[in-house]
Amino acid sequence: MNALLENLAFNEAGLIPAIAQDQKTGEVLMVAWMNRDAIAETLATGQVCYYSRSRSKLWRKGETSGQVQKLVELRIDCDGDSLLLLVDQTGVACHTGRRSCFFRAVRDGELVTIANPETTPEALYGKHGAKSGH
Amino acid sequence: MNALLENLAFNEAGLIPAIAQDQKTGEVLMVAWMNRDAIAETLATGQVCYYSRSRSKLWRKGETSGQVQKLVELRIDCDGDSLLLLVDQTGVACHTGRRSCFFRAVRDGELVTIANPETTPEALYGKHGAKSGH
Repeated sequence: MNALLENLAFNEAGLIPAIAQDQKTGEVLMVAWMNRDAIAETLATGQVCYYSRSRSKLWRKGETSGQVQKLVELRIDCDGDSLLLLVDQTGVACHTGRRSCFFRAVRDGELVTIANPETTPEALYGKHGAKSGH
Repeated sequence: MNALLENLAFNEAGLIPAIAQDQKTGEVLMVAWMNRDAIAETLATGQVCYYSRSRSKLWRKGETSGQVQKLVELRIDCDGDSLLLLVDQTGVACHTGRRSCFFRAVRDGELVTIANPETTPEALYGKHGAKSGH
């Protein structure tokens, strides 16, 4: 843990971007941010915990929706300023109900939606919905 | 292009993180940053161009090393604050000579190297080497 933290370059807010990738399919599911506490908790529990910039607190992914991410492996890049989380994703990663947050693509110069929701925000968060927490 | 830019949330420095993923293997190759000009150039040329935070200028990936990235598709996430670039990578993505920048992983509590270089920085950049440009 100390060896890991010594090799990480957090930004001025004490955060580092983390990519969640489905370890079975290779699909990139989402990008969020982690601070030291989020990394420590994730490694200790094996359940991915991010830091919510909008709520300014730890964000235990799936705490409300049940769509948790089990950590399979944590990797860091050459500069130590990005994390790659290989995960087993329960259900969907995106608060819109889609498997991946990257459901829009530029095709023929237009921004188009390339994936449909597998569930609804209401089913995930109840009637009042919830912010994505990024 | 305008539709894309209108849906993007750049940070206070006018940048947005971009993940490069090998479109054939699904491997996450690297994370870097783009500004509006880098996105425009990438879409116009089909060759990935980032913004180098250390050099404060556009960074045409592979310009020195020849290890270019051909853009296959640009995707954006639900919040519009991250980009996913599906690319065809020529050679290696990492300035260390490895295919991916994510060549270190936490295993059994230790940070270990899990991939070997396929070439050398000297072969990529000449005797004087070069910074990664992130």
